Amino acid sequence: MQWRIAARPTGRELRADDYTRDDRPLDAPLAEGELRVRVLMLSCDPAQKGWMENAGGYAAPTEIGDIMPAGGIGQVIESAAPGFAPGDLIQGSLGWAEEMIVSATGKRVVPPEPDAPRLNLGLLGSSGLTAYFGLTRIGEPRAGDTLVVNGAAGAVGSIVGQLGKIAGCRVIGIAGGETKCRWLTQELGFDHAIDYKTEKVKPRIRELAPRGIDVLWDNVGGDMLDDLMARIAHKARVVICGGIARYQQQGTPPGPGNYFNIVFKSARMEGFLLSDFTSDHDLGRERLRAWLAEGRIKQRDEVVDGLENAPETLMRLFRGDNVGKLLIKVAEPT
Amino acid sequence: MQWRIAARPTGRELRADDYTRDDRPLDAPLAEGELRVRVLMLSCDPAQKGWMENAGGYAAPTEIGDIMPAGGIGQVIESAAPGFAPGDLIQGSLGWAEEMIVSATGKRVVPPEPDAPRLNLGLLGSSGLTAYFGLTRIGEPRAGDTLVVNGAAGAVGSIVGQLGKIAGCRVIGIAGGETKCRWLTQELGFDHAIDYKTEKVKPRIRELAPRGIDVLWDNVGGDMLDDLMARIAHKARVVICGGIARYQQQGTPPGPGNYFNIVFKSARMEGFLLSDFTSDHDLGRERLRAWLAEGRIKQRDEVVDGLENAPETLMRLFRGDNVGKLLIKVAEPT
Repeated sequence: MQWRIAARPTGRELRADDYTRDDRPLDAPLAEGELRVRVLMLSCDPAQKGWMENAGGYAAPTEIGDIMPAGGIGQVIESAAPGFAPGDLIQGSLGWAEEMIVSATGKRVVPPEPDAPRLNLGLLGSSGLTAYFGLTRIGEPRAGDTLVVNGAAGAVGSIVGQLGKIAGCRVIGIAGGETKCRWLTQELGFDHAIDYKTEKVKPRIRELAPRGIDVLWDNVGGDMLDDLMARIAHKARVVICGGIARYQQQGTPPGPGNYFNIVFKSARMEGFLLSDFTSDHDLGRERLRAWLAEGRIKQRDEVVDGLENAPETLMRLFRGDNVGKLLIKVAEPT
Repeated sequence: MQWRIAARPTGRELRADDYTRDDRPLDAPLAEGELRVRVLMLSCDPAQKGWMENAGGYAAPTEIGDIMPAGGIGQVIESAAPGFAPGDLIQGSLGWAEEMIVSATGKRVVPPEPDAPRLNLGLLGSSGLTAYFGLTRIGEPRAGDTLVVNGAAGAVGSIVGQLGKIAGCRVIGIAGGETKCRWLTQELGFDHAIDYKTEKVKPRIRELAPRGIDVLWDNVGGDMLDDLMARIAHKARVVICGGIARYQQQGTPPGPGNYFNIVFKSARMEGFLLSDFTSDHDLGRERLRAWLAEGRIKQRDEVVDGLENAPETLMRLFRGDNVGKLLIKVAEPT
């Protein structure tokens, strides 16, 4: 079984009928360099909506009728590529399918260990690496800095905040709802959490960061970014990681009206792609794994069982009602 | 005689009646640390409108009734500050007045030489230093890069482009009108000039910079910035220097809708203030002076005679009908 793209959700929210279920088996023979893979677990990422829209040139272009792309972990059933053997766990670009034929290019063999899929799609996957490289290489936090992260209870935001604590920052997280906020401060060690659903962000930031924001990690965009840009400190680093506020809107929404504060504050706003740091990904994974082992980072994820639930699960990500990493379990490794 | 601020031009264009002419002499005695100065020449800068509005916390706050502040060159008549003697030429924050009493703090003695006022207010003054530090420290051009500068015929833009040529860049300037564009390519050595009044900027940039913009110097903001942000290259540096499009508008105009391209392009957008580089200003002046002597940089300015013309002259700056640096000559040195 596989889910195929039925419509592009450009300028609107995702809908269940953006996908078609296809129960035909995929039994084509392998070409040179291909793998037949049993999909084990899939990652849910905001970028997936952009892939469906072919927005921004992020990834390989999609066509209507393609299997919905997703990062994931699979197990090799049959290999026509050197370096990959049946039984190997692999990580890379897969899709919403029980079984797939994929190119071996860009696929990484994952060492077998308990919970390998969850670990490699979460902390050691794109969420953790995005947090690690974005914060250390772009945000450049220094001990004593005030770090503000929005979307703080999400897969990336929750790791960014914890990495900020490791770097000696005061960390303020912004999230929606008391449960998420309590998790940030009581379990992840954030210094403060602001519940944007019940608190006004601008005055709360003024209270909690009277000297301004040194590192601003933005997963959200829109008015939220504007409110935070109003409070940046001299030489602030604004890391633009995501723009969940804009992914579901029609046309190009206005940019941050306060962008000119980067002049008054001699600040910078910078974006990045994980692929900029490909040669250092192993280093990033090593560091994150060490901090996990020392108990300095906690990973939280929610695993939804069953490929049949994929469309609904991805929609939940955009509604923001998940905490930590959202994963779809398709099968157990053999 | 002096011109005083009569009204704050917030959210609208400058008007002649934003200033009151005051013919009373300023004959107060000097306090410790003060200088009595005869004003010789004054700089016209976009920031002056912001000073009248107390916008952005750029400078010392102004009050209605204050002498209109302006950077300038004066000659010391009487000194109550160590290090300053009658006859010395000084540079720093002065104002629209024939004679002023000013604090010696922040004033710099300028070596006497022919044309010292013009040189020190133009290439060796804030315009030249802004171009030098903004480009070398923030824009970080590399040989072969494509540099695009808007407001290219202005005091800062015209130097940015010439510094870009020195750094080995392909330089594309955007300016209004054929005369300005011809000056950029024929006299300053820009590779291309786009006349935004008669040409469409976006398709022209696509033609002239098919591989994208590596360094974007923005003096303008608004739709112009948006159009250029759409064409940035991977790892582009966007230097935000000014926002002439926004200085005359009501409220906060929308920011660049395309800001999110810094994510797709792993690019950065950065602002700065000249005061960030104070300890290196002498170095900057040395470099600029050497390039001027070698004929690798040309300075162009327009000197308007007479303090009585100050309000009208500053208004011209915002209409964009000057080429190069716009200066007001108040008196000759004795």
